[in-house]
Amino acid sequence: MGKMYEVSNKYHEYKDYTREFTEVGRSIPRLDGAAKVTGKVQYTDDLVLPRMTYGKILRSPHAHAVIKSIDYSEALKLDGVLGVITGEDCPIAYGIVPHNANEHALAVGKVRNWGEGIAAVAAVDEVTAEKALELIKVEYEILEAVTDPREALKRDDLRIHENCPNNIAHEGVQVYGDPEKALSESDFVLEQEYYSSYVNHAFVEPQSAIADFDNNTGTLHLYATCQVPHYTHQQLSKVLELPMNKIRITVPLIGGGFGGKGVASQADFCSAILSRKIGRPVKITYERSEIFATNNARHPCYMKFKMGFDKEGRITAVDFNNIMDGGAYAGWGIVVLFYTASMVHIPYMVPNVRFEGKRVYTNKPTCGAHRGLGGVQPRFAMEQMLDEAAAHFGMSPYEIRKLNAAESGYTAKSMMYIPHTEYKKCLDKVVERSGYLEKHGKLPYGKGIGLSGGYYISGTSYTLYLSYKPHTVATIKIDEENGATVFCGATDIGQGVDTVMAQMAAETLGIKTEDVKVVPRDTQISTFDLGTFASRLTFATGWAIRNAAEKVNAELFPVAASMMKCRGEEVAVKDGMFYSIYEKSKKSVPWSDVVTMYIESNGPLTCTGQFTPPRRKGIQQGGNIGHSPTFGFSAQIAEVDVDTETGKVKVTKITEAGDCGQPINPMSVEGQVHGSIQMGMGQALYEEMKIAPDGRFLNPSLHDYKLPTSMDMPEIDATIVESFDPSAPYGGKESGEGPIQPTAPAIFNAVYDAIGVRFTEMPLTPEKVLNAIKASKEK
Amino acid sequence: MGKMYEVSNKYHEYKDYTREFTEVGRSIPRLDGAAKVTGKVQYTDDLVLPRMTYGKILRSPHAHAVIKSIDYSEALKLDGVLGVITGEDCPIAYGIVPHNANEHALAVGKVRNWGEGIAAVAAVDEVTAEKALELIKVEYEILEAVTDPREALKRDDLRIHENCPNNIAHEGVQVYGDPEKALSESDFVLEQEYYSSYVNHAFVEPQSAIADFDNNTGTLHLYATCQVPHYTHQQLSKVLELPMNKIRITVPLIGGGFGGKGVASQADFCSAILSRKIGRPVKITYERSEIFATNNARHPCYMKFKMGFDKEGRITAVDFNNIMDGGAYAGWGIVVLFYTASMVHIPYMVPNVRFEGKRVYTNKPTCGAHRGLGGVQPRFAMEQMLDEAAAHFGMSPYEIRKLNAAESGYTAKSMMYIPHTEYKKCLDKVVERSGYLEKHGKLPYGKGIGLSGGYYISGTSYTLYLSYKPHTVATIKIDEENGATVFCGATDIGQGVDTVMAQMAAETLGIKTEDVKVVPRDTQISTFDLGTFASRLTFATGWAIRNAAEKVNAELFPVAASMMKCRGEEVAVKDGMFYSIYEKSKKSVPWSDVVTMYIESNGPLTCTGQFTPPRRKGIQQGGNIGHSPTFGFSAQIAEVDVDTETGKVKVTKITEAGDCGQPINPMSVEGQVHGSIQMGMGQALYEEMKIAPDGRFLNPSLHDYKLPTSMDMPEIDATIVESFDPSAPYGGKESGEGPIQPTAPAIFNAVYDAIGVRFTEMPLTPEKVLNAIKASKEK
Repeated sequence: MGKMYEVSNKYHEYKDYTREFTEVGRSIPRLDGAAKVTGKVQYTDDLVLPRMTYGKILRSPHAHAVIKSIDYSEALKLDGVLGVITGEDCPIAYGIVPHNANEHALAVGKVRNWGEGIAAVAAVDEVTAEKALELIKVEYEILEAVTDPREALKRDDLRIHENCPNNIAHEGVQVYGDPEKALSESDFVLEQEYYSSYVNHAFVEPQSAIADFDNNTGTLHLYATCQVPHYTHQQLSKVLELPMNKIRITVPLIGGGFGGKGVASQADFCSAILSRKIGRPVKITYERSEIFATNNARHPCYMKFKMGFDKEGRITAVDFNNIMDGGAYAGWGIVVLFYTASMVHIPYMVPNVRFEGKRVYTNKPTCGAHRGLGGVQPRFAMEQMLDEAAAHFGMSPYEIRKLNAAESGYTAKSMMYIPHTEYKKCLDKVVERSGYLEKHGKLPYGKGIGLSGGYYISGTSYTLYLSYKPHTVATIKIDEENGATVFCGATDIGQGVDTVMAQMAAETLGIKTEDVKVVPRDTQISTFDLGTFASRLTFATGWAIRNAAEKVNAELFPVAASMMKCRGEEVAVKDGMFYSIYEKSKKSVPWSDVVTMYIESNGPLTCTGQFTPPRRKGIQQGGNIGHSPTFGFSAQIAEVDVDTETGKVKVTKITEAGDCGQPINPMSVEGQVHGSIQMGMGQALYEEMKIAPDGRFLNPSLHDYKLPTSMDMPEIDATIVESFDPSAPYGGKESGEGPIQPTAPAIFNAVYDAIGVRFTEMPLTPEKVLNAIKASKEK
Repeated sequence: MGKMYEVSNKYHEYKDYTREFTEVGRSIPRLDGAAKVTGKVQYTDDLVLPRMTYGKILRSPHAHAVIKSIDYSEALKLDGVLGVITGEDCPIAYGIVPHNANEHALAVGKVRNWGEGIAAVAAVDEVTAEKALELIKVEYEILEAVTDPREALKRDDLRIHENCPNNIAHEGVQVYGDPEKALSESDFVLEQEYYSSYVNHAFVEPQSAIADFDNNTGTLHLYATCQVPHYTHQQLSKVLELPMNKIRITVPLIGGGFGGKGVASQADFCSAILSRKIGRPVKITYERSEIFATNNARHPCYMKFKMGFDKEGRITAVDFNNIMDGGAYAGWGIVVLFYTASMVHIPYMVPNVRFEGKRVYTNKPTCGAHRGLGGVQPRFAMEQMLDEAAAHFGMSPYEIRKLNAAESGYTAKSMMYIPHTEYKKCLDKVVERSGYLEKHGKLPYGKGIGLSGGYYISGTSYTLYLSYKPHTVATIKIDEENGATVFCGATDIGQGVDTVMAQMAAETLGIKTEDVKVVPRDTQISTFDLGTFASRLTFATGWAIRNAAEKVNAELFPVAASMMKCRGEEVAVKDGMFYSIYEKSKKSVPWSDVVTMYIESNGPLTCTGQFTPPRRKGIQQGGNIGHSPTFGFSAQIAEVDVDTETGKVKVTKITEAGDCGQPINPMSVEGQVHGSIQMGMGQALYEEMKIAPDGRFLNPSLHDYKLPTSMDMPEIDATIVESFDPSAPYGGKESGEGPIQPTAPAIFNAVYDAIGVRFTEMPLTPEKVLNAIKASKEK
């Protein structure tokens, strides 16, 4: 094992971190990176098909209304308009839970949120399609809108979906141990309410789809921004009443997904239905306002927590009541609900747990999966409560976390099992590098430092998918010329999995990453993969690729042995050479020579590997994250300057340490960390989708929806701690969703340290800070 | 075995011809047929890449000249011009025979034919690129041109290539038996000279290439009209000095190749070199005149034949002297030279053979491979001589062919071996269906009927490629949803191999062709295939696919057996059902259920198969076609009306019968037959590239180069004779190059029957006919 890897935020200082590996651990720039920044590559909207037409969707100006009539006769008369569809053309609902599927390509009978699709037009160009939308006459009967889930729960008289009493989309109760008894016997019990806000992924690339329906063969070829092509594939099959093998999905490069492109977009359905209707390809690319209108981002949560501690400061119990604002439709809300439940079990040891959660419909754009889904909200609460408890016990926030932190081999009451963790090392590292203990509680008024921890799952599927196996398939084709080609349907949404797959294949094959090509993101050409979510890819594709590559080696090693005249068990391969581990200088043979010899005498060499996550006994279905084979961990320390004149919080530095096991590509890991911090900081301080009481969306543009830019970013000191997860194919696990978990609570803890005020609602706007400062001065 | 399949030329009468097969033998329209005719698909020139630029090539107005200087400074100054290259940028020569490689992307030092490329420009649009060409100043020193190979042989003083004395590109002598003795002992010896003309493929789609060189990764992605991507791949690697695994070739749909797109085009090289130079993609699409200038089509041949017969009319010997006009460069001429040698051995038994051939350089666009290459020229001669001999012996042309025809199991003196032939059945069939025996020699003056036979190789490679193995690789991926995907790099140039591959895979897998997808024509994604030439694909891909599909079956059959509770050896699969051959009504299970069960319990299923042609002992390298595993056969009867006023020959009917073994897709076979007849007729009567004595090209447009159109086509009565080749994977073999062989000699024999004049030169223009009629009347 090598030394600890430390990265700075200067890109030229990236170092490799290879332990005993050769390709894994290399800080290789993305294989497609230069092509992306020089404009060589094509995203979905860049594609043009022969005779392609342009689609636009008419969207509702009302948040809750009955559609009394739609008259598109004038639109159809407009020169250049080729077809119009409405809810009548897409009567079949889709959704992740079959019995609760309530989404439609276009509204059927009623609209439930501002911006819901009413009709879609295909025309020869975009301008004509836009004009046609203006010619469609829709008669609405406006209904009262409900936009607060706590209110919605009381309004059984105002059901958003007729079959959902009290507007409850999903609910769940989960009890492990005896939390009631444990709380009553606790030495210290904290009760607190928190609100986690309504934010959007704000990815750069809008959703886009090009549907090419071939009426002669009855097949659909969809090019789309699908983060989870398999889900889109399934749902298109259902809505179009077309067998899955008559649908091919090709995913061009994706400019950011963060979970938001995991659902099938209305662009996918509408373009497909229009294309089938008019017999020509149809492209639909969203405007920014449509991204907000279709949302599927972070659920606002109204959270009530009770947290008990024994007299040493050990957590005795957590009681967590979560009312989630689901917005208008089901989306992937059930997954998020159950994830929030699971997030109280780890990274600390919690012997008694009660969870009660409800996902509630409101007349707002639907909520769904968003980077670190289900974790960000309860982590925001729990990591602040730990600071409060530490203060109660006279301990440092660092001490209370170390005391409660779970160790490798820990099995939570929920049966969630941690094969390996270096969470304590993460805490040590950030405390050491930031000088936390010397600063915390000792900085001048207005300056503060805050600590938080976090964790996330890695390699699992949603429990809904558990019957599907294998979850990932990888095929490695040994090229006749030189190198290998990896076929795997995993979706690179910007996180860099294409490069990571090449590195992992190269590692086991013993060749250079540059000699591995990856063929991803096409349901016809690539092999099956369940999709990009739940930080599963490095772990899942890693196992499938390693499995395939080991099969390749099993074929090549005997040939290499006979060429080198040594015994098979002496053979190793590295850097494009087979060699005898005993006589490397005397006995070696180039990899490409062995391949040539193999192919000449045995024929082509193509091997397939797979991965399905292990199932753990005793896991309650729907009650938690389920069968996550492992977890990533991180700790962060935020340093803030609070401007007491304006209330503006400036984050000056984030010190981060992450346990992602063996980093496959350290440069890529740090990219994930930086992105996570930016997104966590955005939610903590800047971002919020604003909805008027009647459900109108007040800031659906990147002008009015405020994101932190590069100018707002703090200094980041990111460290990858020494770790190797033995359950992971190359010792590596997630690094893209864990690091967002601690950011907001670290900032909130730092603000408390700076001005002595505890905030419980995101985002922490200057207005709130200023009011609090005023209030505390008035006291 | 089923009944004989008969097709008419009315498309709706196509019948299936399935024998004991289910999918093989179905007259399925091309899977991409409707998409092609409705404009859904994209050919190379339809593609547009980001930041793509347009290239144009400056071409020489002289046929033979030294390039004294090229000044492109003015061109570079033109707004929108991004780069210019000349021969200095491409000093490395390429070619199929390494020691004789003399082709360059652009002329180096000297031009050797009209239209040779001098310089290439990349600009932001085509108009600018054209303008830039006009600004390039080239200073030439004009040399004497030689355009007749017989003349060129005498002009050692005028070497076109300095290293080729007497302008000989290649030469070969081949002797089997004792032809001299056999001729001297023959009862009847015919001596005759023939000339086969200079024609172009005249495919609809021009050559086009888009090179996208990524300077960051040092890789080239070429989209091009490559009929033999592997050859282009090899030669690009050489010329660009780039390893093959840094080059990816994607072949979009091809609009006709006929051998002409088998060579790497200068568009491929120039676009690649320009793209590397300017860092942007470059598209070059040829004008029609550039297709003629780069040619690589049928070699004109000056042929001297001696043919001996015994007193029963049996062929005793053939002595064949062939001077081939190679044009300016090597091209694939060596292959054509050796093919012409082989064409005298079959379909008749020829016990003694002497061949002497020379391919000679002239100052004309290079000649190369062209549908039925090497066969059309000697067949034109031999099939007329057989008619002459028949007349001498008082036999019918039918009788003499039957007498001499080889049978299944025949091994020629050249070691060429015929595993199966139904050539006699072809002769019987056309004679019977046309009423030949009742008409021949008995029609009124001006009307005639003529018979000819022919054959062609199937499944072989060029001998130059023999060291490369496997020659074809096919991978079958069983889809999780339903059906299968076949990966195979075979190139569909319009002949329909994509559909045929799907049928063959479906046959062995026991599913419908419509449930098989094919992923072809991409050196990165598809598996290796040597290329589309020598009518190898149905045979070669058939074996590789069958091999892969049988491996799939070996995996699925045991699962099906256990699901049906029967023994493994009872299991069969057909029409998407596994069943017990003993109890079909009771024991059966859907194919997709077996696949699901297999994948659930065993994981993904992907199998790879391969094919390499068998080698035969005693084959002389370079002396003949070599290791062709089998051959296709055909016979044709032409009926003509000769207008004795104008000399115009009108073909009124062609009766054709072909032995292609088991037709995989009878509709596709007939398409090949019609196309072959059109092309054979074109060469016989219409087409000729006209070159002035100084080497200028006189008719480089489809206005001046006359092709037969649909209005010129005769009635065609095509029959596929009952045949099943046991050496072929599904009993089927070539049908695309054999049927062109008999067309021209059948027409010439018919003209002889009509007006009693024997012509020996193609094309048979009205002028020649009229002159001959006048001459015969004057006698």
